[in-house]
Amino acid sequence: MVHALWRQFPRINLKLTALEPYLLKAVNLSNQPIHHKITQLLKSGGKFLRPGFFYIYSEFGEKIDPAKVKAGAAAVELLHVATLIHDDVIDESPLRRGVETIQVKYGQKHAIYAGDYLFTCYFTQVLKSTQEPADMKRHVDAMQIILAGELDQMQYNFNQKMTEADYFQEITGKTAELFKLCFQQSAIITHASDEIVELGGEIGLTIGQAYQILDDILDYSGSSKQTKKPVLEDLKSGVYTLPLIFANQLDHQDLKPLLDKREQLSDEDIAKIQKIVISSGGLEKAIQTADSLTDKALGLINQLPEQKAKHDLEKLTKMLLTRKQ
Amino acid sequence: MVHALWRQFPRINLKLTALEPYLLKAVNLSNQPIHHKITQLLKSGGKFLRPGFFYIYSEFGEKIDPAKVKAGAAAVELLHVATLIHDDVIDESPLRRGVETIQVKYGQKHAIYAGDYLFTCYFTQVLKSTQEPADMKRHVDAMQIILAGELDQMQYNFNQKMTEADYFQEITGKTAELFKLCFQQSAIITHASDEIVELGGEIGLTIGQAYQILDDILDYSGSSKQTKKPVLEDLKSGVYTLPLIFANQLDHQDLKPLLDKREQLSDEDIAKIQKIVISSGGLEKAIQTADSLTDKALGLINQLPEQKAKHDLEKLTKMLLTRKQ
Repeated sequence: MVHALWRQFPRINLKLTALEPYLLKAVNLSNQPIHHKITQLLKSGGKFLRPGFFYIYSEFGEKIDPAKVKAGAAAVELLHVATLIHDDVIDESPLRRGVETIQVKYGQKHAIYAGDYLFTCYFTQVLKSTQEPADMKRHVDAMQIILAGELDQMQYNFNQKMTEADYFQEITGKTAELFKLCFQQSAIITHASDEIVELGGEIGLTIGQAYQILDDILDYSGSSKQTKKPVLEDLKSGVYTLPLIFANQLDHQDLKPLLDKREQLSDEDIAKIQKIVISSGGLEKAIQTADSLTDKALGLINQLPEQKAKHDLEKLTKMLLTRKQ
Repeated sequence: MVHALWRQFPRINLKLTALEPYLLKAVNLSNQPIHHKITQLLKSGGKFLRPGFFYIYSEFGEKIDPAKVKAGAAAVELLHVATLIHDDVIDESPLRRGVETIQVKYGQKHAIYAGDYLFTCYFTQVLKSTQEPADMKRHVDAMQIILAGELDQMQYNFNQKMTEADYFQEITGKTAELFKLCFQQSAIITHASDEIVELGGEIGLTIGQAYQILDDILDYSGSSKQTKKPVLEDLKSGVYTLPLIFANQLDHQDLKPLLDKREQLSDEDIAKIQKIVISSGGLEKAIQTADSLTDKALGLINQLPEQKAKHDLEKLTKMLLTRKQ
């Protein structure tokens, strides 16, 4: 079942509904338990945001080969799910999309290889979507930025001097680069003009950044009902996100003694930090940053030629990037 | 420092010596500690067997572009090292090539991403070695067989009914497929004839199988001086290799009660199993299997056109596949 979000976009909903069985067929392991877990994860209600954007943006192309677009859309989702599987091993997450993670059910051994295996499924689909070496290189470079980003970000753990620029570099690798790839690659394989390709890259990057900042804002502002990822875990492992970075610039004196405790933060400390992030104006400043990125994305989308896809993209962007705080 | 093994092959030694700094440059992370660990691993005296075979076999080509051959040789070593890093996480190995593993020094989080990152370095080099979509597909397919192989093999853990055919499927994925890829791809990018390409695939596959069987034989026959990998660990995690599979066919009655203990095997049980593997003739039969594969590989090599590389390949194969039992 494709996520309810797409009901408002019937054309894309139809394509994503057809993509699901295609994705399942792209995975072909004789190890049945693992095969089952991977396909379960692919079916279990992810938002399909990346293939969704891929499909929408493909409509700006000039020569659309549906089989290639489908392979391209499948590729970006497979890459996304591969990184999710490894993220879950790393974070020791018990659940993903409401289902038991692979490492909980079968051990991390299976989860690591399952992620690796999905990387190869990703490349198989890339090769079905394009035969251009330059496109291949774009995919590999993006994957490299994503993974180097994960490694580079760990350097910043517990670094109280982490700046806004460091944070942007981090989320670009972690989230925005893959959105950029979706838009760019979708335009390229449908033979869109150079302007559309370039504009797509910028739109994807901006949406990806705003999306990640909003996610990080939710950690500090959301009720536990809205967010499933406890801010506590991130803070204890030294991951400092934009609201905290801003708060630390605005009220370092109050935050320093708390952050100095590093892994030793108590629940009470976490509650104090959350309070300071709000009272210092750090959270508000992060919200403003996200809002201005959303405006930027909408401005870029506005430069696209007049057609149905343009309005879909605008509507979807507004739906995603103006979540209730 | 390239492994001493290559001193007997001065031409290849020279190329591998030049490959080392090239490999180090292929890794480019701003995360300095991880960058350092990966480059340390690349320099730390691995045998460079895969790039070595790649270089030797490239000499049967008809149009050799040294930069492309170098990239191809680098690619197969990077893929090998990427899988080693993930294997070490999975096996919780403290040391690799005598150096502390990444997960011991920095945690498994870093090791998982470091392996993933190396997969992308591998593809970057593949793209430098060839621009043919068919070659790309061959690489991706091989990588898929390797990883699916790792997952599929786990199904056989503790399976006393595992057959010789199951074992061969397992080691083909785990080891032989990458050797096959080295030979095939080396021939293809140097525009060798179709016969050379096909013969290369068979030679690589056969050498890879014999190499893995010999490694598994050492677990049962070697003194602890010769082998660093304790047979105990493999047996306790339910990995049954050829000597045991044969022994189990020849003397199931004695082995069954021991194997039924699964993870609970004591050191004494392990010693008993080793004894039965030898007394039943299982070990001997595995040695014969390896020997006949070695003969097969040498027979295939003999079909190659007369030139220096042919004799080097023969000599190297003999050196590798007739280890002291």
